[in-house]
Amino acid sequence: MNTAYTNAVQVLIDELGRLPGVGPKSAQRIAFHLLQISSQDAAKLARAITEAKARIRFCERCFNISEHTQCELCNDHRRDPSLLCVVEEPRDIVALEKTGEFRGRYHVLGGTINPIAGVGPDQLRIKELLARIDSENVIEVICCTNPNIEGEATAMYLARLIEPLGVTVTRIASGLPVGGDLEYADELTLSRALEGRQRLAAT
Amino acid sequence: MNTAYTNAVQVLIDELGRLPGVGPKSAQRIAFHLLQISSQDAAKLARAITEAKARIRFCERCFNISEHTQCELCNDHRRDPSLLCVVEEPRDIVALEKTGEFRGRYHVLGGTINPIAGVGPDQLRIKELLARIDSENVIEVICCTNPNIEGEATAMYLARLIEPLGVTVTRIASGLPVGGDLEYADELTLSRALEGRQRLAAT
Repeated sequence: MNTAYTNAVQVLIDELGRLPGVGPKSAQRIAFHLLQISSQDAAKLARAITEAKARIRFCERCFNISEHTQCELCNDHRRDPSLLCVVEEPRDIVALEKTGEFRGRYHVLGGTINPIAGVGPDQLRIKELLARIDSENVIEVICCTNPNIEGEATAMYLARLIEPLGVTVTRIASGLPVGGDLEYADELTLSRALEGRQRLAAT
Repeated sequence: MNTAYTNAVQVLIDELGRLPGVGPKSAQRIAFHLLQISSQDAAKLARAITEAKARIRFCERCFNISEHTQCELCNDHRRDPSLLCVVEEPRDIVALEKTGEFRGRYHVLGGTINPIAGVGPDQLRIKELLARIDSENVIEVICCTNPNIEGEATAMYLARLIEPLGVTVTRIASGLPVGGDLEYADELTLSRALEGRQRLAAT
């Protein structure tokens, strides 16, 4: 602890430093920013935190964040219940919804199978996923876990578990990002992009 | 605004996005983090913000942050009042105090002279600085404004203003950072490092 800080500032810096992606330097910068803005503006942030924590819970069906027992996506009856997109975290739903491409439902696993971190299938919402597949007449499960070792392993695990139930299990494509450069792509991404090549329709 | 967010979450993301160095992606990441941690931990952060805002004011002498009318540094009578270090912001005091090298007093200007941003000498605490030089028997003023155009200009301005009062005005050295590499230094820094060369004492 630095003696140049008063106690209240040190507490604030410590608390800010616990946030993801906020290192000691950023925490200090944010703290001094908060001390310099008006009390009303700082209170707005404090209130937004308290409000969100008080009002947000998890959707009891898909485990997305929600202000009600079921989230807006689960309550939207225009969405196709036969198409189920499995993601790791609620923030992945936000990313997918931004595309505007997917009109099915979601299911949040709450992580990935990761033996090193002690996360097995029982710690994820796989039991709940199987129950939904059973009760909601799901035809296809799209595994949208992240394209890293844990995400791939979890997708494989789900495929082995769900395919025998007569449900199609698919995986989002790996390949070059749009606007990317072949020259700078890593070998693994490039070989995945080759594997996943698709025929061009000459119209 | 994205429809996948509930309102309370959007408010939280917006408020977080106003913090310095926190872009939209980071704001989203921090918001989801806050939703997933315990309510107690989130409340701690909210409380730290409110507490710090309620308790922190500015030292009426040097304009450092303080929990009292005068800050700890101004109240520390072991510090040499004849040596006055002029900085832009309170956070610069923290950086300088970490060196443990300076045993004088500080004065926070509250910024730099920046005509483009509409900041002239009158918007800075220069009047208060002159009053302190007069009343506190200051012998040397060390200009520790940042080594950029505005910081240099402000230091020059202060030198012209204060030197005629018979007070020595100095500037912190520019040069290569310790552990740095000559090869990667920019020309300006390198020429400053050459200009500021000092004789090695062969003992």
